[in-house]
Amino acid sequence: MNKKNAIYAQSGGVTSVINATATGVIQAVSKSKKINRIFAAKNGILGVLREEIYDVSKENVKEIEKLLFTPGGAFGSCRYKLKNFKEQKKEYLRLIEVFKAHNIGYFFYNGGGDSQDTANKISEITTKLDWPVQCIGIPKTVDNDLPFTDNSPGFGSVAKYVATSTLEASLDIASMAETSTKVFILEVMGRHAGWIAASAGLAADKKNDPPHVIIFPEVPFNKTLFLKKVKKTVLQEGYCVIVASEGAQYKNGKFLAEAEKQDAFGHKQLGGVAPFLANLIDTNLGYKFHWSVSDYLQRSARHIASKVDLDQAYEVGKSAVKYAEKGESAVMPIIVRGKGKKYTWRISKAPLNKIANIEKKMPKKYISSKGFGITKACKDYLLPLIQGEAYPPYVKGIPDRAKLKKILIKKKLKNFRI
Amino acid sequence: MNKKNAIYAQSGGVTSVINATATGVIQAVSKSKKINRIFAAKNGILGVLREEIYDVSKENVKEIEKLLFTPGGAFGSCRYKLKNFKEQKKEYLRLIEVFKAHNIGYFFYNGGGDSQDTANKISEITTKLDWPVQCIGIPKTVDNDLPFTDNSPGFGSVAKYVATSTLEASLDIASMAETSTKVFILEVMGRHAGWIAASAGLAADKKNDPPHVIIFPEVPFNKTLFLKKVKKTVLQEGYCVIVASEGAQYKNGKFLAEAEKQDAFGHKQLGGVAPFLANLIDTNLGYKFHWSVSDYLQRSARHIASKVDLDQAYEVGKSAVKYAEKGESAVMPIIVRGKGKKYTWRISKAPLNKIANIEKKMPKKYISSKGFGITKACKDYLLPLIQGEAYPPYVKGIPDRAKLKKILIKKKLKNFRI
Repeated sequence: MNKKNAIYAQSGGVTSVINATATGVIQAVSKSKKINRIFAAKNGILGVLREEIYDVSKENVKEIEKLLFTPGGAFGSCRYKLKNFKEQKKEYLRLIEVFKAHNIGYFFYNGGGDSQDTANKISEITTKLDWPVQCIGIPKTVDNDLPFTDNSPGFGSVAKYVATSTLEASLDIASMAETSTKVFILEVMGRHAGWIAASAGLAADKKNDPPHVIIFPEVPFNKTLFLKKVKKTVLQEGYCVIVASEGAQYKNGKFLAEAEKQDAFGHKQLGGVAPFLANLIDTNLGYKFHWSVSDYLQRSARHIASKVDLDQAYEVGKSAVKYAEKGESAVMPIIVRGKGKKYTWRISKAPLNKIANIEKKMPKKYISSKGFGITKACKDYLLPLIQGEAYPPYVKGIPDRAKLKKILIKKKLKNFRI
Repeated sequence: MNKKNAIYAQSGGVTSVINATATGVIQAVSKSKKINRIFAAKNGILGVLREEIYDVSKENVKEIEKLLFTPGGAFGSCRYKLKNFKEQKKEYLRLIEVFKAHNIGYFFYNGGGDSQDTANKISEITTKLDWPVQCIGIPKTVDNDLPFTDNSPGFGSVAKYVATSTLEASLDIASMAETSTKVFILEVMGRHAGWIAASAGLAADKKNDPPHVIIFPEVPFNKTLFLKKVKKTVLQEGYCVIVASEGAQYKNGKFLAEAEKQDAFGHKQLGGVAPFLANLIDTNLGYKFHWSVSDYLQRSARHIASKVDLDQAYEVGKSAVKYAEKGESAVMPIIVRGKGKKYTWRISKAPLNKIANIEKKMPKKYISSKGFGITKACKDYLLPLIQGEAYPPYVKGIPDRAKLKKILIKKKLKNFRI
């Protein structure tokens, strides 16, 4: 029997637990009776197109296990979206050529919404062109904006980082507020959806606990209301902690960080909401401020990953292989939340063709009435996702991490220009 | 025998382990046969002036123990420096009035260089004015710039945070660099000394490992050399990780973040070196960048504190009480490094009058010849300080922390205006 090989590829912005998904896939394939070998593409789909493919079987199994606590994308990721067949016929034909050359029958694509769309297209086209490849999308995104799945692997760990950092920084500013900093602003990721910003709300125990103001992309920014809220909080609590999503925007959809002339950090690339808000507060209220932009630190903070998130990241990888073994294609493993009071979860699947281009934003019922906080329903949703600590081992005071050999398989085809 | 009471006060920017010093002081006084009760000033020296003083004996001993893993300043800190007796006679007399009213014979002042200076002045003046108070300064500063002591409690934990965060973010950018971000900049604290920035160098194992560029306040910023180094690194490694001290400055002493017109974040208050450098790279090299400003997150990150730092923070507190019991005044416990290959340390003392106004900067031998990295000697110095993990317990997914009652003692004096 000619057992086919599999390729695993990472796509889009990486997370602190995406490599745990890789471990899930690799370990499941190594036990599979249906799938032959597992390869990994260098830098996502680009590696497939270029026939730059790592031979995972040459890696030490201990290092594959170490991927469980290694942040970033161990095989390299990319931001490259395949359009439709008409527009990128050459690329699709090349993919099939590579798949054929290396006897690939399975493609595991680990990414966000765009990557699920790509996986779906590849599934359709390879079937049409008589080299059917079973394409399984595997969810991953710190933004938590994938539909169908209860949450996205990668998010729970960022949420835990943001909630913890907000709590810690709040204790800091609270102790300094009388004679020094009155306002602290933490900028977090989330271009279109406020899930990460929302998770800062988990730092609060009681009413009026910090964070006092959360700024969601889903709530149009109102300068007057914002300044009023900050002032009231400083007068009442002595200080104000603000957590702002990088995607904070005005009613007209313009991002805050883009909205006014800003020499040093505009560039449409987001980031810079925190200094923008700091300037607003300084100009209008005159409070001493500090601000922090967590940027990559938040999504790579494996040292404070959520155990639940890590387990789910591993499990979606393992389940992707199971679905492939069952003959499925164009599906994505999803996380389904149990109905009881105690948090439980299991893996199910969703069809890829329904996932593309849907961004799951924060529902209204998760945002408090004035738009600056989260509701109890939101807390109930978020809290289980940050449970458990999954510390990496430390060597010489810093986290240990996998060191892969990354040996490329021998090319069989001519070079391909992208 | 009329045993006198003690006041403990926190001063200046707080750290993730300053409360461990408080625990050291409080637990040592509770066992002391010489010192009667321990009080804590609300918001540092201001609390003494205002007679706003917490009765620590009313706290649950378990909560005092929990201060070991609570970041921030539990009793409140302040930025308030007492000038000399001539200029602030009223304040000094008030201090003595408060000390007398509450039978205070011991003052433990937990802070950086300025606070040691204040403690020294109080020691001198109370002796002169016939109510001698034994003043013991206790070291604390994330900046690591106090003289005499091998290192400053608070620094080791920031160093561990910065080294770990640099490592994690480097793994992230390395996996994205081909099609996305080429340059990542992390801005860290350190207005005059580059110790915190230096600690990022601990993330590197081998030559050319990230961070590729460290910017110290001690090395005048040279735009041409900097851009050349960044370009070379991107061409060679595919990406470049930069860690910049907030105090990065030109040869003429001007801070980078202040040097050009910057609408949204100038204000002489530092912070903003990262977006400044990002802009420089964007304009001159055109690389896609990301930047992060860790600000308060770094100095409050108790979740990743160094065990060595925590132990030392506790021990300087405990030792301060011992010195007081021995009749010492105007001294500060210091950390002395053992001479063997294996890291050992013990506590000794230094006279406060020699500490004031000395900032311990990075010695030349710790900075690599081109000025963008650290030497082996520097690594050898830093590495022991980040050893060991001292995780806080977690409750519902976020770190637990002490909750103090903070009951003020009854005032005996008239109000005092500051």
